[in-house]
Amino acid sequence: MKKPIRVAITGAAGNIGYSLVFPIAAGEMLGKDQPVILQLVELPMAVQAAHGVALELDDCAYPLLAGIEVADNAAAGFKDADVVMLVGAKPRGPGQTRADLIRENGPIFTGQGDAIDANAAEDVKVIVVGNPCNTNALIAASRARRTNKANYTAMTRLDQNRATGQLAKKLGLVPSAVKDVFIWGNHSDTMVPDVSRGYILQNGEKAPVASAFDAGWLAGDFDKTVRTRGKAIIDARGKSSAASAAQAAIDHIHDWYLGTGDASVVSMAIPSDGSYGIPEGLVYSFPCRITAPWKYEIVQGLEIAPATQSRMDGSTQELLSEREAVKDLL
Amino acid sequence: MKKPIRVAITGAAGNIGYSLVFPIAAGEMLGKDQPVILQLVELPMAVQAAHGVALELDDCAYPLLAGIEVADNAAAGFKDADVVMLVGAKPRGPGQTRADLIRENGPIFTGQGDAIDANAAEDVKVIVVGNPCNTNALIAASRARRTNKANYTAMTRLDQNRATGQLAKKLGLVPSAVKDVFIWGNHSDTMVPDVSRGYILQNGEKAPVASAFDAGWLAGDFDKTVRTRGKAIIDARGKSSAASAAQAAIDHIHDWYLGTGDASVVSMAIPSDGSYGIPEGLVYSFPCRITAPWKYEIVQGLEIAPATQSRMDGSTQELLSEREAVKDLL
Repeated sequence: MKKPIRVAITGAAGNIGYSLVFPIAAGEMLGKDQPVILQLVELPMAVQAAHGVALELDDCAYPLLAGIEVADNAAAGFKDADVVMLVGAKPRGPGQTRADLIRENGPIFTGQGDAIDANAAEDVKVIVVGNPCNTNALIAASRARRTNKANYTAMTRLDQNRATGQLAKKLGLVPSAVKDVFIWGNHSDTMVPDVSRGYILQNGEKAPVASAFDAGWLAGDFDKTVRTRGKAIIDARGKSSAASAAQAAIDHIHDWYLGTGDASVVSMAIPSDGSYGIPEGLVYSFPCRITAPWKYEIVQGLEIAPATQSRMDGSTQELLSEREAVKDLL
Repeated sequence: MKKPIRVAITGAAGNIGYSLVFPIAAGEMLGKDQPVILQLVELPMAVQAAHGVALELDDCAYPLLAGIEVADNAAAGFKDADVVMLVGAKPRGPGQTRADLIRENGPIFTGQGDAIDANAAEDVKVIVVGNPCNTNALIAASRARRTNKANYTAMTRLDQNRATGQLAKKLGLVPSAVKDVFIWGNHSDTMVPDVSRGYILQNGEKAPVASAFDAGWLAGDFDKTVRTRGKAIIDARGKSSAASAAQAAIDHIHDWYLGTGDASVVSMAIPSDGSYGIPEGLVYSFPCRITAPWKYEIVQGLEIAPATQSRMDGSTQELLSEREAVKDLL
């Protein structure tokens, strides 16, 4: 049997956490032949519920689940972790601005960044799901000394999945018919869904997205639906996205480790290396390709339409102002 | 691409439903090459939340999800369904006895049985998860004219999984090391966990459960933990089992369709054919073997220890009294 991979999850007893831990234990994230040890991390006030989640995990008798640990602090929770999923974050309260939210979450992510760097495996892979996830990842990455800053990522896969789902639904196709749509920028309403490389695969024929849909719909309703989907979910469910966010986090880590299958590109928010003129270090969503297990590279050389470039710049400006708001923490 | 299988789920926006629909859409239940169409059924008061779940399913871009339908009534919800999962049921209220619960749920399951028989595929497969699940399945099966009574089943797989998980945990092994433990009887505290055919598989060696554990622990703490686990989960989580119940429902249907892999037996509560002296028609959990897709048979010829027989008789008596309580509905 393979050596187990240790996966630490914050907010493990929360709504997203509860949708996340079971499929991971079932082998959906790291493969059906890969044992996992789950490290459930919760605030002291919620750790009892995390113990309850652990009981239910026992009750599933997952063949690959080699251990469950529960911790009420980050240092213990991240010990030797190979993968850290930072799901827990303070939600936006009534009347709070995005800037308020950034300031409230900042200190949480300096603490978690320090705890990861001190306790996790040296080659730990990190995904931040808790919002504002790009800047939370920037803060956590800024604490990395022993671990690799490039491995601190944030989730825009949910946005990619939403875009893919919308295109498939419009044509009445299964989502596997839609390929290579991706997201630039910040996981906020400044994000830039990019369909310029996307195509529809039907009966073995590839049709570019641009030829399969009305341009006005792509630039209008489609774009807006993807960017504002979070609010639509809250309006319909009375609760924010949980299972779809969890699935996207699983997809992000799955593809980073096991590859993207027949897709050639996947959206990951990663510390910029300066590609496409994005300021170095900003955690920005790029089209990435997985070249080996746990190795991503930014897809280079794409031609960017002027309208797309202008929106990418807008998302950059937003991320720069978010960085400015937390500069004392970096 | 294979023809999609239609799966109808009642209580789709409830806690178990929310844990159930996403893994089904991901291919965990019917296979990673099997398209599915989900038919989400909810009460009119909850159908808006079911529409919200449908949005989140879109947002996961599951490659195999060929369609999502939402219905606020059973007739529409079960139309052409190949698999029906009856998850929704009235929970037990404060001060209610089990008998009260049976009387409250009875009429729901006559209605759902009628709607299945009138609308679903002729060879529909049914699993009842909503409690009291054995007698609810008995009621639904009693309405079957066009459909096959033998395909109306209830879930004791959660109890089997709990037993397997407890044995693995006690030895510090992954649950795949524990095989062929199963459940007789009613999904209630009269259930009979049976480890007499169970074994531990370690380094290619099989050791009978009886030789690997203390007999006092097996007859005492182990047995009680399995039978009363539902309450322990509520105490720890403040909520009843959801993800583990959903996983067990997935396992039940998965194995019925795709087989049990290297396990030779699986627990399913099914209409008795008189095997082991269980009165014909009672929905009783037996050790089953899957002989072909959607074909189960009861494992015959097992020697039953007197202590086990006596407890099996107790569970039979309970089911007979439950049947008596709803005889006007049958």
